[in-house]
Amino acid sequence: MTLSADRERFEAHAHPLVEAQLSQVPTTLREAVAYALSVGGKRIRPILVYRAARALGHGDAPALEHAAAAIELVHTYSLIHDDLPAMDDDDLRRGQPTLHRAYDEATAILVGDGMQVQAFSLLTAAPGLTAARRLAMVDVLAAASGFPGMVGGQYIDVAATGEALGLDALKAMHNLKTGALIRAALALGGHSADADETALLALDRYGEHIGLAFQVVDDILDVESDSATLGKTQGKDAAANKSTYVSLLGIDGARREVTTLLDAAIATLSPLGDNADDLRELARYIVARDR
Amino acid sequence: MTLSADRERFEAHAHPLVEAQLSQVPTTLREAVAYALSVGGKRIRPILVYRAARALGHGDAPALEHAAAAIELVHTYSLIHDDLPAMDDDDLRRGQPTLHRAYDEATAILVGDGMQVQAFSLLTAAPGLTAARRLAMVDVLAAASGFPGMVGGQYIDVAATGEALGLDALKAMHNLKTGALIRAALALGGHSADADETALLALDRYGEHIGLAFQVVDDILDVESDSATLGKTQGKDAAANKSTYVSLLGIDGARREVTTLLDAAIATLSPLGDNADDLRELARYIVARDR
Repeated sequence: MTLSADRERFEAHAHPLVEAQLSQVPTTLREAVAYALSVGGKRIRPILVYRAARALGHGDAPALEHAAAAIELVHTYSLIHDDLPAMDDDDLRRGQPTLHRAYDEATAILVGDGMQVQAFSLLTAAPGLTAARRLAMVDVLAAASGFPGMVGGQYIDVAATGEALGLDALKAMHNLKTGALIRAALALGGHSADADETALLALDRYGEHIGLAFQVVDDILDVESDSATLGKTQGKDAAANKSTYVSLLGIDGARREVTTLLDAAIATLSPLGDNADDLRELARYIVARDR
Repeated sequence: MTLSADRERFEAHAHPLVEAQLSQVPTTLREAVAYALSVGGKRIRPILVYRAARALGHGDAPALEHAAAAIELVHTYSLIHDDLPAMDDDDLRRGQPTLHRAYDEATAILVGDGMQVQAFSLLTAAPGLTAARRLAMVDVLAAASGFPGMVGGQYIDVAATGEALGLDALKAMHNLKTGALIRAALALGGHSADADETALLALDRYGEHIGLAFQVVDDILDVESDSATLGKTQGKDAAANKSTYVSLLGIDGARREVTTLLDAAIATLSPLGDNADDLRELARYIVARDR
């Protein structure tokens, strides 16, 4: 299945689950949520959810739409809060005004807060799974997005601005900040497909490699691309004197690292056979993308 | 059992669960979490958790500490975000500098985000309960704290500043902003004690009444108390031209409303017999408090 087919699936079946739960909330708040969710992202995490399940032969498991919506909610909330003036202070996200610019800061804080928790409501309501499986999904998402995961990584990133991180510290930060949620997407897809421990482990190792690859590519794009293509301000990391893979490894070294990580990611999928072809394709897309 | 005994139980058994999960996070972040959680609140929501279970004859259910820590984390995170400059812009909370004043705004945003999600990690790990019960607890907490609950109420409150809300709109706002989490505390205590639907319903109706009473008392204190006793800036609501129970009902009308709500709260507990005495006492404390 193509990336755009998976994206269309998300828009048609997962995205509407979010709005369906908001019928009682004030109109402006509902519009702000819709704005934040619809500023067209790449939907990589929902695609990972779908493809993880497909790799296990259960690409139509009924829980997948809830899982896809949940992971995209957490990702979107994290961007909303990261963009705030007190954090990265970004005016643009995917070429559109960030939520606090389109609305205001209070709305952006509250929309982020509400999106995070709505992700858990969606997981508890995921159809076709035992309570134990749904609880495991809640546990995975909570661990990945909290202090021991995304929030912890974001804190390290914010606290380290202007300081030079070494390569190991940079990897550790990105493993938390970006990697944890990518791995959670794969685990949610796996749980939706009733995966056993072996399959979950293979998916997790794949996620670890593509998560790092994703970030190295981001750092390369921050140097090589332009703001119009990126849809966000180019060159911000260098301007902020942040350590990046490019500043630590050089542009050629960063490119070599991407190739190494791509090979490793694809190798982890061999136990899953041809069913995992869409995950292989996604890994190649992540390293070849231009924004 | 006295209120202070329940508070000591929280400090001795529930509070440490939070820090135990933070051994891997950066020291400053851990300290900020500890600061936010230890600025001594009244711990009313954990006390509700304990007393709900006690009212059902299961005051020692092993899940209670996890439930108590989870609800206090959500309450504390909501205060941290509400205090931010873009929201209520408060410098003091319980007589101490608010988190963004003691640290900085980025830390306050991230600590709030992380606390919210840690609450769910604590619930999934609650001992002695089936997966279905723990899932029900996650569901209760998510619904109470998200768009259809606390976040939605806070949004209405922020959006309405400077506008006169009528009495029904004011009640609806407080039912979401404060009431939903109070009711969730009682439901978490009930689930920890393996409550049936009838017991959960009685607890919920009690929570509805004391939640409103709590807010009416807050409005009275905002007019009658002083900043030193309150531990926060007195008279803020009037200065901000916000509708309050006092502005809508007058001070005597507000006091009569408190008495009506207290009587109603106590009446809902009659099916639970003497076991519910501590909940009755708590209702009386809520209306008699001076801060």
